[in-house]
Amino acid sequence: MSLHLQRDLDQLKREILQLGSMVEVAINKSIMALHERRIDIAKEVFDGEQFINQKEVVIEENCLKILALHQPVAVDLRFIVVILKVNNDLERMGDFAVNIAKRAATLAELPTIAFPTEFSNTMPKTIQTMVKNCLDALVRLDVDTAQSVIILDDEVDDINRNMYVKLRQMMESKPETIEAAIELLSCSRYLERTADLATNIAEDVIFMVNGEVVRHQSS
Amino acid sequence: MSLHLQRDLDQLKREILQLGSMVEVAINKSIMALHERRIDIAKEVFDGEQFINQKEVVIEENCLKILALHQPVAVDLRFIVVILKVNNDLERMGDFAVNIAKRAATLAELPTIAFPTEFSNTMPKTIQTMVKNCLDALVRLDVDTAQSVIILDDEVDDINRNMYVKLRQMMESKPETIEAAIELLSCSRYLERTADLATNIAEDVIFMVNGEVVRHQSS
Repeated sequence: MSLHLQRDLDQLKREILQLGSMVEVAINKSIMALHERRIDIAKEVFDGEQFINQKEVVIEENCLKILALHQPVAVDLRFIVVILKVNNDLERMGDFAVNIAKRAATLAELPTIAFPTEFSNTMPKTIQTMVKNCLDALVRLDVDTAQSVIILDDEVDDINRNMYVKLRQMMESKPETIEAAIELLSCSRYLERTADLATNIAEDVIFMVNGEVVRHQSS
Repeated sequence: MSLHLQRDLDQLKREILQLGSMVEVAINKSIMALHERRIDIAKEVFDGEQFINQKEVVIEENCLKILALHQPVAVDLRFIVVILKVNNDLERMGDFAVNIAKRAATLAELPTIAFPTEFSNTMPKTIQTMVKNCLDALVRLDVDTAQSVIILDDEVDDINRNMYVKLRQMMESKPETIEAAIELLSCSRYLERTADLATNIAEDVIFMVNGEVVRHQSS
């Protein structure tokens, strides 16, 4: 590999990590806005969205430039295709953080409803771990860490399913909670889909390292 | 461009259109299963998912092969990067069709609730038009058709927002409808996200033709 290509790939890696950090911050803030009823924090998430979007566009352009300039093959080519996909997934995670922040801002103006414990404790922690670890796995090309992300996805799916049951029961027994419960149910779904995207990234890391497609294996 | 590259790009175009047709069928069936309470049709959507997933994997592999073999530049390179993204978006649309079919199967076993008219008539037609037209735009590299898809997205967003208001009112006035209304609200969201993905594809077509990034312009 030429020194120029190596330098450009290193730069790409730094950029995708920067985007990852921006998205991690957005997710953490949206969760905080939701749990602490903080409209000011929700606004920070809205304000940050444009920077995430700009970064995504820059990374895609840089991938195209590297492909055109260096015409990489084998593992380098696969790396760039994976970065294109991860870039897309991170931008979507940023969208979900904005969606959660919107719901958080609405919920902050409605009467408080009780959040199920696993939603308040386990779910945010698990998702933060998944997002952090899928990026670590990407940068270190670490299949074990990628596998650990995929395993955590089931946990998040279970919590989301339980949220649906618990919130439906809440709505049926206390119709005055319907508006807030619908919002909270959406937040749970967005978090569940954030975990799905972290899983996608982990699967793409495995594909990059092993050349083995692991996505769709559960279906 | 070499004849070999031309032949491989034509083949890729045919494959993405085949995937598009499979996804269109899945969407149409999931909508039919929902409106006609047909569990048998929902099952056809579940059974079709594996073929959509397989096709997506094959298309991605073929993109990688073409990049490695022909090292295309300029418009051909951009075309392949767009196909990689469209491939991803179509596979996600297939997932949404499966999700709608699941909800349809659940709803078919619950007491019937009234579907708002615009959800029954306008929304499915608009989405079917958007999916068909974004693929037409892709194959014919037709910016006008792509623009028409982007414009329709607002209509779907409005219907989805109205669904939320109407279904919340239904749940509040008739708590016995809560379970079914939550399922229906999910279907409305999946349709809205399908429209978002058709919009993504249309935006990517404009990017491919004009080299101009139009996504994120509303944010």
